[in-house]
Amino acid sequence: MFSHFVKSALPRCEFTFTYTAWQHTRGWCGASTNLDQARTLLQLIVDRGFISPGHANVELFKRGTTCSYGPLGSELRENVLHQWWRSMTGSRQQVFEINTPSSSGSPDIVAGRWGHLRIVEPDDVRNVLNETELSREQLVHSVRMFLQRSPLLRTNLIQGALEQFVPLFELVNRKLPFGIAETGRCFQPSQDGSAAEVTHGSLVWFCSPRTSSQWLDHWARQRLKWWRKDELEEVASRGVKIYYKFPWGQEALEVLSSRGDCELLQMHKGVRSKFQSRDGQKSVAHIVSITGNIDRGLLAFLSNSLQLHNREDIKQKLHQRKVLKLHPLLAPVKVALGIGRGATMELRQVCEGLWQELKEAKISAWPGYLETSPVPMEQLNSKYDEMGVLFTAVISENTLESGLLQVRSRDTTIKETMHISELNNFLSRYISAADNM
Amino acid sequence: MFSHFVKSALPRCEFTFTYTAWQHTRGWCGASTNLDQARTLLQLIVDRGFISPGHANVELFKRGTTCSYGPLGSELRENVLHQWWRSMTGSRQQVFEINTPSSSGSPDIVAGRWGHLRIVEPDDVRNVLNETELSREQLVHSVRMFLQRSPLLRTNLIQGALEQFVPLFELVNRKLPFGIAETGRCFQPSQDGSAAEVTHGSLVWFCSPRTSSQWLDHWARQRLKWWRKDELEEVASRGVKIYYKFPWGQEALEVLSSRGDCELLQMHKGVRSKFQSRDGQKSVAHIVSITGNIDRGLLAFLSNSLQLHNREDIKQKLHQRKVLKLHPLLAPVKVALGIGRGATMELRQVCEGLWQELKEAKISAWPGYLETSPVPMEQLNSKYDEMGVLFTAVISENTLESGLLQVRSRDTTIKETMHISELNNFLSRYISAADNM
Repeated sequence: MFSHFVKSALPRCEFTFTYTAWQHTRGWCGASTNLDQARTLLQLIVDRGFISPGHANVELFKRGTTCSYGPLGSELRENVLHQWWRSMTGSRQQVFEINTPSSSGSPDIVAGRWGHLRIVEPDDVRNVLNETELSREQLVHSVRMFLQRSPLLRTNLIQGALEQFVPLFELVNRKLPFGIAETGRCFQPSQDGSAAEVTHGSLVWFCSPRTSSQWLDHWARQRLKWWRKDELEEVASRGVKIYYKFPWGQEALEVLSSRGDCELLQMHKGVRSKFQSRDGQKSVAHIVSITGNIDRGLLAFLSNSLQLHNREDIKQKLHQRKVLKLHPLLAPVKVALGIGRGATMELRQVCEGLWQELKEAKISAWPGYLETSPVPMEQLNSKYDEMGVLFTAVISENTLESGLLQVRSRDTTIKETMHISELNNFLSRYISAADNM
Repeated sequence: MFSHFVKSALPRCEFTFTYTAWQHTRGWCGASTNLDQARTLLQLIVDRGFISPGHANVELFKRGTTCSYGPLGSELRENVLHQWWRSMTGSRQQVFEINTPSSSGSPDIVAGRWGHLRIVEPDDVRNVLNETELSREQLVHSVRMFLQRSPLLRTNLIQGALEQFVPLFELVNRKLPFGIAETGRCFQPSQDGSAAEVTHGSLVWFCSPRTSSQWLDHWARQRLKWWRKDELEEVASRGVKIYYKFPWGQEALEVLSSRGDCELLQMHKGVRSKFQSRDGQKSVAHIVSITGNIDRGLLAFLSNSLQLHNREDIKQKLHQRKVLKLHPLLAPVKVALGIGRGATMELRQVCEGLWQELKEAKISAWPGYLETSPVPMEQLNSKYDEMGVLFTAVISENTLESGLLQVRSRDTTIKETMHISELNNFLSRYISAADNM
């Protein structure tokens, strides 16, 4: 029922439309198989410094777990997190941000809620193992007891929100609904025996029992819009998942569940008075949770934005152009500053001034002018396209004379001439326009 | 020698001066002992929702470890982290941001460098313990081997930077100096057997051997300026620490060390060619590391900003005014919006519009107009002062008629009347002015 509702009633909003246009105007036209697509994508992500090289690191990344991100990956991750926060807290006065530890050493916590992984100081275990007077049986018992007292690592962010419910409920004068949001690392056992880290974005939404299914619908629509997708899958009867089709298969980006009130009741040991709302019904808050995997989301944005174009040059040699058409708000670098013909020292000084100015306007720029070996412009453009850089500005001796520079667009490959004093404004306008789409 | 240099040569920059003025114009005048100060500070931080209540949580916070932060604490933490990033990457093109996992499962890592704490899946240990055919000795051996294969948790962020050195060194065309910066959670064994989490801000600076002591001086001056302090302590011969005097004693906020080249050589197994710079000397990079404790820094900013003022009312009853004079850039809430006399519903609508406008301008506002029970203005002002809110704007029936509202300043307690359309601009100007001090 629910998924039917979403599919039929979801307005084809501008947002979704934009995404579709974005996705289909230039599709995959080079890679013939999914395997090729996957290989090309992962190779590019390593080559352009989104993530650190190495097979193990690429595997972590592909699985949607936290890996070692290089400069571009870190910036993209920041941008995704920033947009996640904007969408969750944007227009709402009643979403509170919290930040909690990822481990809990409290003795009265319930392992099931926190997960199973524990932090152990091996020296302490060794001390237990070295107690020679213990029998085999006693030794087994001691190690077991030791483990039971060790701090637990969180598997999700819901626990932190439940723990802060009471003071925040007081803050809003016991009025529902309100939400508690957090982003952070969680730890999950992985198949190969090691621990996997995942960056979650979590909103725990507290509402009255009679509105909880409407709120689940509301948040599902809102999240589909954010992910720019229009399909989801029902999970059991009380939740939905949003998926993305990677070249290697479908994986979940976000899970929404209607969780009832039992977790709150359990945590506060049934003292209902602590969390009865001030409305007529004195109802206990019900919970709708929204948990997104930010690492996998980042991979989905990258995967979705890669476009391949084959073309022949004049010698009929086949070239493949790879472009990361990341959304202007997500692109880790908005403009690359390069130098053309002219006195290198002087041109660099101009670039440095421009870089500073862009930095102050919070427009991330790539200092291509620091490159020491001369690289043909065509090759540089390919590199910047693969980095997802929106524009490339070239400062040359012409700029020193007339103040004019050349700006090339990633998406149209068209070059425009503009005055150096206009660049900052041009970029700001371009980025805000994309924000309002 | 070094600390002498800093003390004598550090220019009394405007920044430091401002801080001193800030600190001394109105000092602690209420609390008679350090213990009172500590108690007042920690009580206020809990009462105003900077951190979650509970003795264990307050202890974590006081120790400078990551605790459960409420909405104000989370926002303050974000602001501190943001300013940390600005100061580290601000004017430099050659500082790269990275983001790495907090645990490592790789079999060839060296425990000493990564720390000692390990992540253990208790079910796997139980499987080992359940192997009944093992002798006591074999059992001890199996548990030991199991621990040795378990993933290690990081104690600092230096390891991540060392691991990314080679690809980033290539990116800068093997030219020194450059830096790798990261912020994130680290895990340290705590005295009581549990694990403590700490949020580090780390810059690992790679430079030529002959400049490393100058760079240590440079960064020490830069960091003193940022922390707005003018004293530091030499640690052994190759580093310095920046301390803060809390009411309960002195603790380190930041540690700067000159680490030489042995960590890089060790990690890359002595293959010098991988990290020889392109300058004439083909030198191997030396490392200067700067590691700040963001959680303790946050506590220092709070502790430093609390001011107590005693005054008698007309009935000669003693009142204590507590004000958190947080720096305008750090204050988690810039303006509280409250309502005065008039039609509540209409006034709330005006407030909501204003709240949205401020949100879009990235000025964090407190929706005081959602308060349902009428609270005397005097009492509200006290509350906002304790929250460190810069200004309180009161919207009343007068605003509906003339567009005028009253704005009270936290620092001067003076009330000004201004037009509602001016508020956004007024606040933006005030915050930027504080940024340029």
